[in-house]
Amino acid sequence: MKALMTAWYQKTIRGVLLDITGVLYDSGPDGGVAIEGSIDAVKRLKASGLPVRFCTNETTTTRKKLVEKLSKVGFELKETEIFPPIPAVCKILQQRSLRPYLIVTDECLPDFAAVDQTNPNCVVIGDAETNFSYENLNRAFQIIKSLENPVLFSMGKGKYYKHGGKLVLDAGPFMKALEYACDIEAEVVGKPAQAFFHTAVQDMGITPETCVMVGDDIVGDVGGAQNAGLRGIQVRTGKFRLEDENHPVVKPDGFVDNLAQAVDLIIAYMSK
Amino acid sequence: MKALMTAWYQKTIRGVLLDITGVLYDSGPDGGVAIEGSIDAVKRLKASGLPVRFCTNETTTTRKKLVEKLSKVGFELKETEIFPPIPAVCKILQQRSLRPYLIVTDECLPDFAAVDQTNPNCVVIGDAETNFSYENLNRAFQIIKSLENPVLFSMGKGKYYKHGGKLVLDAGPFMKALEYACDIEAEVVGKPAQAFFHTAVQDMGITPETCVMVGDDIVGDVGGAQNAGLRGIQVRTGKFRLEDENHPVVKPDGFVDNLAQAVDLIIAYMSK
Repeated sequence: MKALMTAWYQKTIRGVLLDITGVLYDSGPDGGVAIEGSIDAVKRLKASGLPVRFCTNETTTTRKKLVEKLSKVGFELKETEIFPPIPAVCKILQQRSLRPYLIVTDECLPDFAAVDQTNPNCVVIGDAETNFSYENLNRAFQIIKSLENPVLFSMGKGKYYKHGGKLVLDAGPFMKALEYACDIEAEVVGKPAQAFFHTAVQDMGITPETCVMVGDDIVGDVGGAQNAGLRGIQVRTGKFRLEDENHPVVKPDGFVDNLAQAVDLIIAYMSK
Repeated sequence: MKALMTAWYQKTIRGVLLDITGVLYDSGPDGGVAIEGSIDAVKRLKASGLPVRFCTNETTTTRKKLVEKLSKVGFELKETEIFPPIPAVCKILQQRSLRPYLIVTDECLPDFAAVDQTNPNCVVIGDAETNFSYENLNRAFQIIKSLENPVLFSMGKGKYYKHGGKLVLDAGPFMKALEYACDIEAEVVGKPAQAFFHTAVQDMGITPETCVMVGDDIVGDVGGAQNAGLRGIQVRTGKFRLEDENHPVVKPDGFVDNLAQAVDLIIAYMSK
């Protein structure tokens, strides 16, 4: 007798969350390139009637510029469909009357324009790229050490991502550096924080258990989604590495070669 | 009845290890300044007949330049009395046929001149100051990720030190960043590694339990010395902070206001 296994796409799906970098496209100095089949896959997914949101830890740019960038690569996304950490962290800063010292890219600064940054009483880091300089990290460290109730926000805690064909350091390692130097624990805003997934899920008007997350980061996307009650599907694109197939902690609900294959499976089963 | 306590200086002392930065002098952009009483304290300690060695995690410069720098501030040290991590790591690299990618200051490069650095098969980091750039850290990360048996050496794992009157980041936080990004554990060469203390102790021809280490870093100097079987004495100079008096892990064998006071106690008891 053979046990009947239910595959991840055979359980109710009422909405889909997609990571952007490494799933839709690979970023690069020239604006990046679409991953084969992903442009069409996003179109077909949207045409299927399922709500789709884009859950990204992208913090190098504003939501507006990200939409423009993706449009050049061939994706037609709306700003309201994209959930990045910056708007989420700005809301928290406002609610808790916190004035950040920012280590982020210059390009994303406009999204912090409404936030008071004078006399900082917390630190916010994102994927700051070359702004992760010794000088800036020292300044962040000195501010945290000077505070009675130090607060460090990290927009995501990814280890690395693929940029221009190479793996490069994400915000996570620098979060760890400041945590160690200051003996504090950062508050992560972005994946894999549960609240971050839930905001996007709620926006679709569905519940986590009916939602599928497709990502290239086994810990941040797949493990994070699973911890938040979603199904987590690992693509073999972007920063995926063979060793992820036997990850010591995270066991994805499914592996797919790319987003196109994930969408094929979802749509084929829906049409049955 | 009152229990008789034996103070740290009342047990046999056959040799003394001194940290340099924060104990002898405070570093700074202008070459730094001697800590009050320390120049005289080193002289008196040497005159007492006790062997003295200087056990430092200083990796920003060569041993030669360090001697020159200290001489300008007022200390007459010999190169052979100073035990920094660079000669120790060079020895290990040679023994294990490792070719390092270095993240260190430009100033200390001459001490690595004899080491083959082509086609790197390991990474060595020191207190690299502004050479802890995003570019250099990415390169180190990419090398480690490309190796089948990755090796990361960190010369010390201090969190921060005092420079020009401000606390600034030491090598430790960047070691943590690379450890997290690469899922590896660094090999620490320098304090608080046991072997590092023992090399200096052996050079004096004594045993660890008869040796006293005086330092300003409660974890690296004091805790490290204690783990290596020495007595660890905390000075209230350099990077010392009030919270060190109630450190959750390390309980120093003694606290002194400065090196001068430590030497006073040692010499006064010796003369009894």
